[in-house]
Amino acid sequence: MPYELYYWAGIQGRGEFVRLALEEADIEYIDVARTTGGDEKMMRLMRRERARPSFAPPFLKVGSVTIGQTANILLFLGERHGLSPKSDVGRFWTHQLQLTMADLIAEVHDGHHPIAGSLYYEDQLTEAARRTKYLREERLPKYLGYFERVLAQNGNWLVGRRLTYADLSLFQIVEGLRYAFPKAIKRLERNCTRLTGHHDRVASRPRIAAHLSSDRRLPFTNDDLFRQYPELDS
Amino acid sequence: MPYELYYWAGIQGRGEFVRLALEEADIEYIDVARTTGGDEKMMRLMRRERARPSFAPPFLKVGSVTIGQTANILLFLGERHGLSPKSDVGRFWTHQLQLTMADLIAEVHDGHHPIAGSLYYEDQLTEAARRTKYLREERLPKYLGYFERVLAQNGNWLVGRRLTYADLSLFQIVEGLRYAFPKAIKRLERNCTRLTGHHDRVASRPRIAAHLSSDRRLPFTNDDLFRQYPELDS
Repeated sequence: MPYELYYWAGIQGRGEFVRLALEEADIEYIDVARTTGGDEKMMRLMRRERARPSFAPPFLKVGSVTIGQTANILLFLGERHGLSPKSDVGRFWTHQLQLTMADLIAEVHDGHHPIAGSLYYEDQLTEAARRTKYLREERLPKYLGYFERVLAQNGNWLVGRRLTYADLSLFQIVEGLRYAFPKAIKRLERNCTRLTGHHDRVASRPRIAAHLSSDRRLPFTNDDLFRQYPELDS
Repeated sequence: MPYELYYWAGIQGRGEFVRLALEEADIEYIDVARTTGGDEKMMRLMRRERARPSFAPPFLKVGSVTIGQTANILLFLGERHGLSPKSDVGRFWTHQLQLTMADLIAEVHDGHHPIAGSLYYEDQLTEAARRTKYLREERLPKYLGYFERVLAQNGNWLVGRRLTYADLSLFQIVEGLRYAFPKAIKRLERNCTRLTGHHDRVASRPRIAAHLSSDRRLPFTNDDLFRQYPELDS
C-alpha cells in the first residue's frame, strides 16, 4: 500500500521537504494535496484520527498509522528508506541538522508573520520589516555560515559520503531563500560557495531533477512559507 | 564515562528539558553549566567541535560524540534509556509530540522576543504585547487543547502505559506557563483538567520531585525562556 502524504493543496510549504525525500528514494506515494478535495480529505483525517492526531500538516499515512511533524516524517523515511546513515551517530547527527533547518524555516515564516499566522501579512507590515532586517543581517548569515562550515568539514554532503534527507532539505531552503530574498541571498552565497555547489549537486540528482520539472512541483508563491516581498529584501 | 550536558549557566532554558529526562532515568551526568566556568567550557567546545558542531546549546557529550538539538537529545535518551516505547510506532509518535512542544516553546520565546533575540525585551515592547495577545488567545488554547485531547484518548501518560520524555517536557511547559502567564494559564487549565492532573503526576515521580527540590533546579527568571511580564498576561 503506497504511503499517503497529507498537506495543504496549492503550496509547497513544509510538505515539499517530505516530497523531496519521497521522490529521491523513489517511494510510491499518493500526494493527497494533488487529488480532488485534498484539503477536505486532510482536514477530515486530522479531526478523525484518535490515537495519534497531528497538530498541523504535513503528516504521512503509513498503513493505518499517521506520522506527523516534518522532521519526524523525514526521520522515519531516513531510517526505513536509506536516506540517513544506519549508525546511531550518523542518524542522530542527520536529525540534528534537520531540526536546525526546522528552526531556520520557522524564522523565515515569522519574518513575514511576526505577530500571528492568523493575520494577513498586510496587518503586520511594520513588524515584518523590522524582524526581517534581523533575519537578513543576523540570522541567515549565522544559519548559512553554519551549514557552510558543516560542508567544509565533510565534503559533498552534510553527513558521511552519501546524500541524506538533510541534504534535500538544505537544497529546498536555498531554493526558497533565492525566491524570497533574491538580493540578500546573492550576497550571502558569495561567502557560502559550498552551499551553492551543494544546491546544484542536489538539483542534478536524476529523481530530484525529474520532480522539479514535473507538475508535482508547484511554483513558489506569496501564499507559501517563502514569500517574495521586495520591501523585505535588500 | 558520565554524559556531559552543556547549556547556558544561570537559566533553566531548553537545557531543563534534557535535565528532567536525565534525572528521571537516573542517568549519571555532569551538568557543565553548574561547574565553574560552565559557559566558557561550552563556548569552547562549540567552537572546537569539528565533526558535528551544534548551532546552539543544549548539547550532550556522550563519549567523544556530541548530540545537539533538544528534541534530538531526548530522542537519543528515549531510545537508549527506556524513556520512549521500543516500537517504531510509539517511538515516532513520542517524537512527534516532542516536536510539537518544541514549536510551542519557540512561540513562547518569540512572545517576548518577536523581532530579534539579539534585542532586549524593552526594545520590542509594542510588538511583544501584540504578539503575546495572539499567543494567549489563539495559540496556547490550541496547543494545550491538543495535548488535552491526546491525554483524553490515552490516559495517564501521553504515549502508551508508561511515562516518556514527552511527558517530562509537557510538565515543564505547564510549569513555565504558570510562571509566565499566571492569569491566562489559570483560565486555560480550567478547560484542560487532564493537563493539570498530568502535571501533578509527573511532579510526584520520586526522582523528579527530588530534582525539583534540589539546587540543580534553578528558579524561573526573566532571563529565561518563560518570562513573567505582567503586561503580557491577562
